[in-house]
Amino acid sequence: MSDWTQVSYAVDGGVATLTLDRPDRRNAYTAVMARELGEVAAAADADDAVRVLVVTGTGRDFCVGADLQGAGTFDRSAQAAEAGTIDGVARDWGGIGALPFAALRKPVIAAVNGAAVGIGATMILPMDIRIAGESARFGYVFSRRGIVPEAASSWFLPRVVGISQAMEWVATGRVFDAAEALRGRLVSRVVPDAELLDTAYALAHEIADNTSGVSVAASRQLLWSMLSAPSPWDAHRAESRVLVELGSGADAAEGVASFLEKRPAVFRAPLDGVGEGWPAPPADLA
Amino acid sequence: MSDWTQVSYAVDGGVATLTLDRPDRRNAYTAVMARELGEVAAAADADDAVRVLVVTGTGRDFCVGADLQGAGTFDRSAQAAEAGTIDGVARDWGGIGALPFAALRKPVIAAVNGAAVGIGATMILPMDIRIAGESARFGYVFSRRGIVPEAASSWFLPRVVGISQAMEWVATGRVFDAAEALRGRLVSRVVPDAELLDTAYALAHEIADNTSGVSVAASRQLLWSMLSAPSPWDAHRAESRVLVELGSGADAAEGVASFLEKRPAVFRAPLDGVGEGWPAPPADLA
Amino acid sequence: MSDWTQVSYAVDGGVATLTLDRPDRRNAYTAVMARELGEVAAAADADDAVRVLVVTGTGRDFCVGADLQGAGTFDRSAQAAEAGTIDGVARDWGGIGALPFAALRKPVIAAVNGAAVGIGATMILPMDIRIAGESARFGYVFSRRGIVPEAASSWFLPRVVGISQAMEWVATGRVFDAAEALRGRLVSRVVPDAELLDTAYALAHEIADNTSGVSVAASRQLLWSMLSAPSPWDAHRAESRVLVELGSGADAAEGVASFLEKRPAVFRAPLDGVGEGWPAPPADLA
Repeated sequence: MSDWTQVSYAVDGGVATLTLDRPDRRNAYTAVMARELGEVAAAADADDAVRVLVVTGTGRDFCVGADLQGAGTFDRSAQAAEAGTIDGVARDWGGIGALPFAALRKPVIAAVNGAAVGIGATMILPMDIRIAGESARFGYVFSRRGIVPEAASSWFLPRVVGISQAMEWVATGRVFDAAEALRGRLVSRVVPDAELLDTAYALAHEIADNTSGVSVAASRQLLWSMLSAPSPWDAHRAESRVLVELGSGADAAEGVASFLEKRPAVFRAPLDGVGEGWPAPPADLA
Repeated sequence: MSDWTQVSYAVDGGVATLTLDRPDRRNAYTAVMARELGEVAAAADADDAVRVLVVTGTGRDFCVGADLQGAGTFDRSAQAAEAGTIDGVARDWGGIGALPFAALRKPVIAAVNGAAVGIGATMILPMDIRIAGESARFGYVFSRRGIVPEAASSWFLPRVVGISQAMEWVATGRVFDAAEALRGRLVSRVVPDAELLDTAYALAHEIADNTSGVSVAASRQLLWSMLSAPSPWDAHRAESRVLVELGSGADAAEGVASFLEKRPAVFRAPLDGVGEGWPAPPADLA
Repeated sequence: MSDWTQVSYAVDGGVATLTLDRPDRRNAYTAVMARELGEVAAAADADDAVRVLVVTGTGRDFCVGADLQGAGTFDRSAQAAEAGTIDGVARDWGGIGALPFAALRKPVIAAVNGAAVGIGATMILPMDIRIAGESARFGYVFSRRGIVPEAASSWFLPRVVGISQAMEWVATGRVFDAAEALRGRLVSRVVPDAELLDTAYALAHEIADNTSGVSVAASRQLLWSMLSAPSPWDAHRAESRVLVELGSGADAAEGVASFLEKRPAVFRAPLDGVGEGWPAPPADLA
């Protein structure tokens, strides 16, 4: 697991960092990177020492998009052997690399500097929080390459920025700067490049140092899955089940006791048992 | 119905006011308050003299959250007798108090001053409009207490503020001020505390004094229920049915006539017959 | 097809313009206009020379709403012969005129000047991008006329501006200006009236001059349809299918080649085969 070639990975103080790491190609995306992203996500999910995952890129850029190798770059039918198939057709490489972040039991923070174009702009959408350095620029450029949005971005982008903003960016295929990304709510804040990682880590530690891991995992599942639930009464059923389970647990007792005693909480509940249901891949994509 | 002990209720000029009223406990939430909230919502729904409901808190705070009674506060399995069960598990108290506002046939305006934390921050989400005094502060603090968002907020919060903002507030559990709530679209405006109730009542009267009650009730049902409809053609079917009914009614005739005659409208249509379908609780939660 | 009486239509350089054209009645909406809107949308959809559709109004106003003809204006049951029926009830005229834009395979830009009230405010919601002149004012005034939102706006409005903003505008029925529309994300930008059409055409050409028509058509379908899909894995399935098809096509080869050769792309792929599935009307409304 540790011989990844196009990404790097490190864990420090409850916060893991995944770095897209092909600086000679401006972190351009490949089938190898797609597979390694999934492996890192699985490693972060399984490691109890990891509470939050930060994703960033080596060098000046986050990810310039697919590694363009000539006219056949997007001919996926010729590439099914590398990616596997779904419903009998070759799977989109973007989804293979991005969807593991949707299924994670830990929150993910994307810290974007420089170019995040194509898959560089879509892989960040299943992540929970996106912040940008002032140099960041984004592009859903698929209509300028003769293809369509991938990495399940047709599902995520309208939910993250609204359908009208999503359609404007996707129909024009324009590359836009960090200020436009902020106005359009693709990122929640823009900071000087030199402060980008510090800002991401401060946010990561705000989570890791103050909260219960089992609470955050179960909350992440509830919020993402309820996006598709018909009515709030479905949420009432699901929340009641989880509250009965967590409300009698060690972290709930510690959460209340530490608050009443005006001291920091020490949470310990394991993630075991959290993680069933959506967001999790369907059986044929697990 | 009028011997409520933890809330108060008054009706004046078409506008009802529900006040969380436990100032000695900063309006902390209890099983009693949950039940009383549902009773007040039912009373407001049934009273033809009520066009709009304003919800606020007595004293400096809106609601500081659950009334913390030691480590067993959130042990719902020990409390099923008080709340009833759903699918065989103890029902979340938050949902019991908040969901009646989702099913109301009248619009609800939350006027938030001081602390709105935990259930104080989630009970306002099924309400249609939220405004804040400058002193307001909010917190989805569940991950700092070892539990998860309740009151069906896992359904409402991503729809009200977007999934990314929802995840940031829920994962960090941070308490944030009125300005952050405005930027994040949790509230639609922030005013000086001294103007909070006047602003809420002005908005309430903008509705009560100018609109048809049956129109607003049917519109509220259409908008909330269409959040879960697969396609706009479903809305076309539903709207066509309602328009055939209301379009031949007394309020539609008065609405057009008053407009053409450049005079205030006097609407009279009763709410009878409006209120079927969602938003309404499923049978086992009615 | 060219003898439309209440709208006009012209195509120039890949961009079509549909103009609501009843200046003597401030472009008030009628059953005739509803039918003509659908016919123009069909014409734009079928014409390979049209890449983008701009919709605007003749004269000072965009559309002041339904042409009010006295107290019976909204009595649709008396008007079923003109509009046809759905599920046995008279169809809403608004949906007849607006829903064809939801099913279009080309992006639509609404350029709104002056009053856009009632159906004037709802017909623009299935359009992808809305921009406003400074004189624009909007009103979801249905509750002040004794009826409810139409044109499938109960589905579109909460998705475009969020449920809370939608409820505030619908419950109050207020008329609001361009600045409030911008703050509430109903329009993406406000420009001086004299620059409104130039701005719309610049945006239209940003799409028409730089992108693949088949890419934009397939992207529009994916984004709108995925608004109703349960999970991102549904998007992964759909995107994989489309990518296999488009990725081996002429436009994908040209898109990559032109990028690598640093020259403008010349896209040629026909729209044949794009257009199945949603957004498309169900069989009984086709």
